[in-house]
Amino acid sequence: MPQPTVSFIGLGLMGRPMCHNVLKAGFPLVVWNRTASRADSLVAAGARLAASPKEAAAAADILITIVSDPPALEEVLWGSDPKSGGAFASLKKGATYMDSSSVSPALARKIAQASAARGIGFLDAPVTGGTWGAEKGELLFMIGGEAADLEAARPVLSAMGKKIFHLGPNGAGQTIKLAMNLLLALEVDAFAEALALVTGAGFAGEKLTEVMQASMARSGVLDVKAPVMLKGDYTPSFPLRLMHKDLSLALDLGNQIGVPLPATAAARETYSSVKGSSKEDLDYAAVFKFWKK
Amino acid sequence: MPQPTVSFIGLGLMGRPMCHNVLKAGFPLVVWNRTASRADSLVAAGARLAASPKEAAAAADILITIVSDPPALEEVLWGSDPKSGGAFASLKKGATYMDSSSVSPALARKIAQASAARGIGFLDAPVTGGTWGAEKGELLFMIGGEAADLEAARPVLSAMGKKIFHLGPNGAGQTIKLAMNLLLALEVDAFAEALALVTGAGFAGEKLTEVMQASMARSGVLDVKAPVMLKGDYTPSFPLRLMHKDLSLALDLGNQIGVPLPATAAARETYSSVKGSSKEDLDYAAVFKFWKK
Amino acid sequence: MPQPTVSFIGLGLMGRPMCHNVLKAGFPLVVWNRTASRADSLVAAGARLAASPKEAAAAADILITIVSDPPALEEVLWGSDPKSGGAFASLKKGATYMDSSSVSPALARKIAQASAARGIGFLDAPVTGGTWGAEKGELLFMIGGEAADLEAARPVLSAMGKKIFHLGPNGAGQTIKLAMNLLLALEVDAFAEALALVTGAGFAGEKLTEVMQASMARSGVLDVKAPVMLKGDYTPSFPLRLMHKDLSLALDLGNQIGVPLPATAAARETYSSVKGSSKEDLDYAAVFKFWKK
Amino acid sequence: MPQPTVSFIGLGLMGRPMCHNVLKAGFPLVVWNRTASRADSLVAAGARLAASPKEAAAAADILITIVSDPPALEEVLWGSDPKSGGAFASLKKGATYMDSSSVSPALARKIAQASAARGIGFLDAPVTGGTWGAEKGELLFMIGGEAADLEAARPVLSAMGKKIFHLGPNGAGQTIKLAMNLLLALEVDAFAEALALVTGAGFAGEKLTEVMQASMARSGVLDVKAPVMLKGDYTPSFPLRLMHKDLSLALDLGNQIGVPLPATAAARETYSSVKGSSKEDLDYAAVFKFWKK
Repeated sequence: MPQPTVSFIGLGLMGRPMCHNVLKAGFPLVVWNRTASRADSLVAAGARLAASPKEAAAAADILITIVSDPPALEEVLWGSDPKSGGAFASLKKGATYMDSSSVSPALARKIAQASAARGIGFLDAPVTGGTWGAEKGELLFMIGGEAADLEAARPVLSAMGKKIFHLGPNGAGQTIKLAMNLLLALEVDAFAEALALVTGAGFAGEKLTEVMQASMARSGVLDVKAPVMLKGDYTPSFPLRLMHKDLSLALDLGNQIGVPLPATAAARETYSSVKGSSKEDLDYAAVFKFWKK
Repeated sequence: MPQPTVSFIGLGLMGRPMCHNVLKAGFPLVVWNRTASRADSLVAAGARLAASPKEAAAAADILITIVSDPPALEEVLWGSDPKSGGAFASLKKGATYMDSSSVSPALARKIAQASAARGIGFLDAPVTGGTWGAEKGELLFMIGGEAADLEAARPVLSAMGKKIFHLGPNGAGQTIKLAMNLLLALEVDAFAEALALVTGAGFAGEKLTEVMQASMARSGVLDVKAPVMLKGDYTPSFPLRLMHKDLSLALDLGNQIGVPLPATAAARETYSSVKGSSKEDLDYAAVFKFWKK
Repeated sequence: MPQPTVSFIGLGLMGRPMCHNVLKAGFPLVVWNRTASRADSLVAAGARLAASPKEAAAAADILITIVSDPPALEEVLWGSDPKSGGAFASLKKGATYMDSSSVSPALARKIAQASAARGIGFLDAPVTGGTWGAEKGELLFMIGGEAADLEAARPVLSAMGKKIFHLGPNGAGQTIKLAMNLLLALEVDAFAEALALVTGAGFAGEKLTEVMQASMARSGVLDVKAPVMLKGDYTPSFPLRLMHKDLSLALDLGNQIGVPLPATAAARETYSSVKGSSKEDLDYAAVFKFWKK
Repeated sequence: MPQPTVSFIGLGLMGRPMCHNVLKAGFPLVVWNRTASRADSLVAAGARLAASPKEAAAAADILITIVSDPPALEEVLWGSDPKSGGAFASLKKGATYMDSSSVSPALARKIAQASAARGIGFLDAPVTGGTWGAEKGELLFMIGGEAADLEAARPVLSAMGKKIFHLGPNGAGQTIKLAMNLLLALEVDAFAEALALVTGAGFAGEKLTEVMQASMARSGVLDVKAPVMLKGDYTPSFPLRLMHKDLSLALDLGNQIGVPLPATAAARETYSSVKGSSKEDLDYAAVFKFWKK
């Protein structure tokens, strides 16, 4: 039985390494990206470059998208410009479509409805990073959708990620992704507040870090971000503007369903302040700059 | 060379097990507690029960206090009631005094000044819990004070805790302790917000926990508190009223030195709300009740 | 010279009385509303009921829209359903279009661009209520756009409102409207917090109100809302769900431009909490229910 | 019948003009202030300068204190230094004591208890400013205590203030004063957020002020502070450090009784940030500097 053809739209910081893993696992791969040159290493490794999202989608048994925000996803799927949009209409019946962007659960459900109407299986399937030890740096997939569609996608998912969590119907993946990023953003902001307090009181931030790493407060993300804040080198690993966007999506969801999120709301304004006063693209650990302006 | 006599004031959740470790290490031990019956197991193990804080302090080569809040500490040290106060005046010159309560850095420095004037060595030495693996459940000491005083206390400290961090001059221990509890309280509150969002949106909180535990957001304290929130069994391990007090001390410090702490301020009000609407003494993981009223 | 024909889309709490004033001033008036029966009193007074937004817009020398939120406005202007959308395309060249809904400044600018391309003059023209004395209850218009377009609309504006503020180019009206609603929402939330503190401490809320009304803190909106909170009768004058929406638009704007709004963010979550736990449609003074759950 | 002797401790921005009004009303007046030279104009107008708080209190039929914060009040009343403390012990039985400082309700009740034990009538009697029109700039007294004590003090109160509100038993005056300052501080902070949003979006702050002053959001305090923020001239009328202190007292009270105050908590951190980054003593309208750093 031949391997299904995988099409992949969005070759950013996350997308490109995921594609290399898909190729390594032996799947035929078609790719598309707004800036075509980002596909070079993949084409060299055997991928085919599509001329448009439509062409990529038309070729797919399994389509994967991972773009920067909800408007970018809507443009790729339904946009009227044939060079950058319209992928959804050219998906074939029976295909599986899996979106790994971070978008609102409402958009995930809108795609799910449109997919159901066309006989396409849809999974919302955003990702997060694994923690210590064996899984460090590995991707975890948070899946919303039907079990049958997950089974269709599982071989490809397994090529890209270490763990696959089936969390519920469509929307569950994006909801838990937003909750996870809320948690990561608040852990980092909490450490920034703790560090601002200690250094503002005249003591060494390194000492706080040392105690934190031996304590119950230690977390995977703080192992990585605490040294970044102490050094002040904010080369983006996960850009602050994307974390700020995800906090905004989490707050939008909370406000739609009437669930107050007071600490998230406070932290989002702190991230916003740093976003507003920074010219470069910074890692989200740069939230600490709020106290260093 | 004989072992120094250790006197210990405050036999609460933390104090009593610390005392048992002091005894196990072979130090002569004198204890005092407002409710004397809490000393029974220690007396049975060889400790001497003092009739007053003054008597305990007078016997000490090394005095240790661990009481619930700043007013309680001031009462024990300087209170005029001979049955419950006045310990400080009866300390002998050359003694070492170590306070492991959580109090303001300002109070730690006030004690340090008074100690210096009397030829007593003083350490602010609050504690926090260790993290995974070998150190799980072990105490970590966060020390402010002079190196010579730390060396005098080290044998006793080593009997009680796994790690001893010398963080700077007097006040450093309490400052970093407040920063650590700010961090722990915000990690727990952040998870509570994430859980409220996920369950409010109609998905299973267990799924969030499962993903969290495989992710970069995993932390020592969340390993313990996430299951507590899912079950809703808030038997106090560390009482919410004490965590609320420590958040208040952290905010007081930030406000004295003009360091804004927006997320901490938001979280403190959430803890306050739960404190105000709860009759029983709950663990601080009960902050999740804010969304379950 | 004949009076210009005015078309009006949206006959809600604000729209209907505005229309009656337009009629009284002698303008020919065409109206449309999703629920047609809300036009009855206007038809009785001489207005013509259009069958669709398109028909209303086609008849207009001056078109006015006032609908509940940005999606509703986009639907009326550009929606593809001929019964409820598509008004914009049927506007004639040289017409003046004025939107009095509360929407994002970005949407106001998008309409302005589309209007300029078609030779239509556009004003963003949201409203707020006047204060004490002579102006009490009168409408104030906050205008963004070009002076010439304002002059074309001024006779109709003067029929509907007491004061007309020309605030800058397109977007200025909506920006200042969002800032005004932020201010009103925070004044009301501030009084709710003050009232919760006083009554929580066991004193009479009436006493706080009495002092407030003689003090520098007295404001037009609190004169109206303080008695409402004391009585707990939250029949909507301005619905909480709309104030919550406007706070969300203000926060979205702040977050786009990187201006942190910490108190607004905190208050928005409080409004969200009440929105989430209320079944009926309540006035925004019901924010006080946050403390009465 | 001779006029009662009034003694007055604390000749600051509020105290000195109050004293001049007491003299004008014909009461014998004894004054004390830490910096004695601040009494010069009062001595010239007929007041007697006491050498110590004790001497001032001993001479009083009615004692009034108005000092900067709770520790300053405790020092004046109970401090052991005979030059600056110990006033309380020298009050005579049957005297009336009235404190117009802003302190915690708990401290007001502590003074009330001590007074009752000694046969002294005590009123907590903080002040706030009156609003528009006839009362503009006049003082309002917020009184907690017994009616009989209020009647004893009324002639002196009437000499100093326009309105006297009897709000309940001891503690009521201070509780409602804290609620009033919470309200004033939040109104000013709300306008600062609105102004930051409007100017950050590129529009003129003067336009916002103009609309505000015609709208329901207009308040007595904003009439005064909005122009101050536009000009950026923060000569203290009411210093930010004192408003910050009163917000802290309001939050302390809320946290003691478990009443969450989310917007107040957010605003307090904003005031704290400006306090921390300012060298001079600024008016509390300078909270707007948070966005101008």
